[in-house]
Amino acid sequence: MPCYFLKIAYRGTAYHGWQVQENAHTVQAELNEKIGILTGQPINVVGCGRTDTGVHAREFYLHLDMEKELTLSPVDFVFKLNRFLPEDIAVYGVWEVPSGAHARFDAVSRTYRYYILTEKDPFTRELAMSYNGKLNPEVMQRASHVLLGRQDFTSFSKLHTQTATNICHITHAAWEQKNNFLIFSITADRFLRNMVRAIVGTLLEIGRGKMQPEEIETIIDAKDRRRAGYSAPAQGLFLERVRYPDELESILLSNMKP
Amino acid sequence: MPCYFLKIAYRGTAYHGWQVQENAHTVQAELNEKIGILTGQPINVVGCGRTDTGVHAREFYLHLDMEKELTLSPVDFVFKLNRFLPEDIAVYGVWEVPSGAHARFDAVSRTYRYYILTEKDPFTRELAMSYNGKLNPEVMQRASHVLLGRQDFTSFSKLHTQTATNICHITHAAWEQKNNFLIFSITADRFLRNMVRAIVGTLLEIGRGKMQPEEIETIIDAKDRRRAGYSAPAQGLFLERVRYPDELESILLSNMKP
Repeated sequence: MPCYFLKIAYRGTAYHGWQVQENAHTVQAELNEKIGILTGQPINVVGCGRTDTGVHAREFYLHLDMEKELTLSPVDFVFKLNRFLPEDIAVYGVWEVPSGAHARFDAVSRTYRYYILTEKDPFTRELAMSYNGKLNPEVMQRASHVLLGRQDFTSFSKLHTQTATNICHITHAAWEQKNNFLIFSITADRFLRNMVRAIVGTLLEIGRGKMQPEEIETIIDAKDRRRAGYSAPAQGLFLERVRYPDELESILLSNMKP
Repeated sequence: MPCYFLKIAYRGTAYHGWQVQENAHTVQAELNEKIGILTGQPINVVGCGRTDTGVHAREFYLHLDMEKELTLSPVDFVFKLNRFLPEDIAVYGVWEVPSGAHARFDAVSRTYRYYILTEKDPFTRELAMSYNGKLNPEVMQRASHVLLGRQDFTSFSKLHTQTATNICHITHAAWEQKNNFLIFSITADRFLRNMVRAIVGTLLEIGRGKMQPEEIETIIDAKDRRRAGYSAPAQGLFLERVRYPDELESILLSNMKP
């Protein structure tokens, strides 16, 4: 069975997240429908992750197992699919990959970014969280370091999820100021539901002086969601980068056939 | 009479341009209303230019002549006004300037940018024009050079306007590719109505090969709007930078009083 990877981006504002749900407009449902029309085959795309309502993706991979090969060339397929899809979903590439490749299980790391607008900006509505008060980025940076490594992040996970383990390996977590934005970047092998937003909400409480940077260690140890801060709003969160093993990555970085 | 300059930015999508009109939502009307409420004085702000429906401004200056001095400090005035104004208008500063200073007549140059999106992007809806076909930036660049200098731009002006002269001095006109955008920047002492969009539309016809770059000289000489290309859509156009004489500029670049 031929298998393809697609690289896309989407603005999450109008969607109830990635995953197909009854009676809700989702990115996955939109893609299943439009790729189905374009190929004439029943389609069930599998994404590299499951973003929540209102969360954006600047780089998102999905795979589709097809009954038969695409008849369109990759370049034509991407061009036509972009015409079919609404303005808020863009397709950047399609590549045939070895059968059995899996957009979610094969991903080795994911990077999210959270954008906080520290000055009013008329051009980034719905693409950042606005924050007008004073923040201390130095203590937020210090607290971020404590997140690094292999740890149990139950305290930053949505309650009652069905994952086998809440252990994640965070390899990067840092803040930077860029123009009007304070941006948090975080990379891990995996993320729990709501994890980045709970971390950002907690780091903001630290930045406001409502919590000490050292407390983040106690919060992690508690394994209790109620100990962490509130969840930062979805509109500031972007899935920014997904990495795969070298063999797959070398295919995804190659030029598409014209 | 105390006179103040304000520096603002706005997203033009929801507005019928800058200038107050009967029964239309305009940026000027919105500012008159909100500054009026904030100061308790009747307000009639004067802008540095008149952008059309849907055109954006990343930097825009306006002046207001007040009956009496602002009672709020500049920092508090900006903070409160930003709270009053909708999300798509942002205020960045207010400075007292010598009485008689004029946001429009004192401006010595204006820079506009036109953004053309050459690849689908879910995050810049309404902030660029989309163009999927092939363009030759090299001939567009060549044609842009012909625009430089002091010339009569009647061929690129809306018909039946009441300006005394259609002569403008263009000091910069160039294209650059930046990520997914092809960006045109143009600076002049003044612009006629619709001029940048008519120039961009014409340069696009040249970039598509529908017109030769040399033809732009014939078009300018004709002094006839019908000779130039179509008008590029408003959503890609930004007023980007306005310059004033040094004495005024040094005030506008100074820190506001807290």
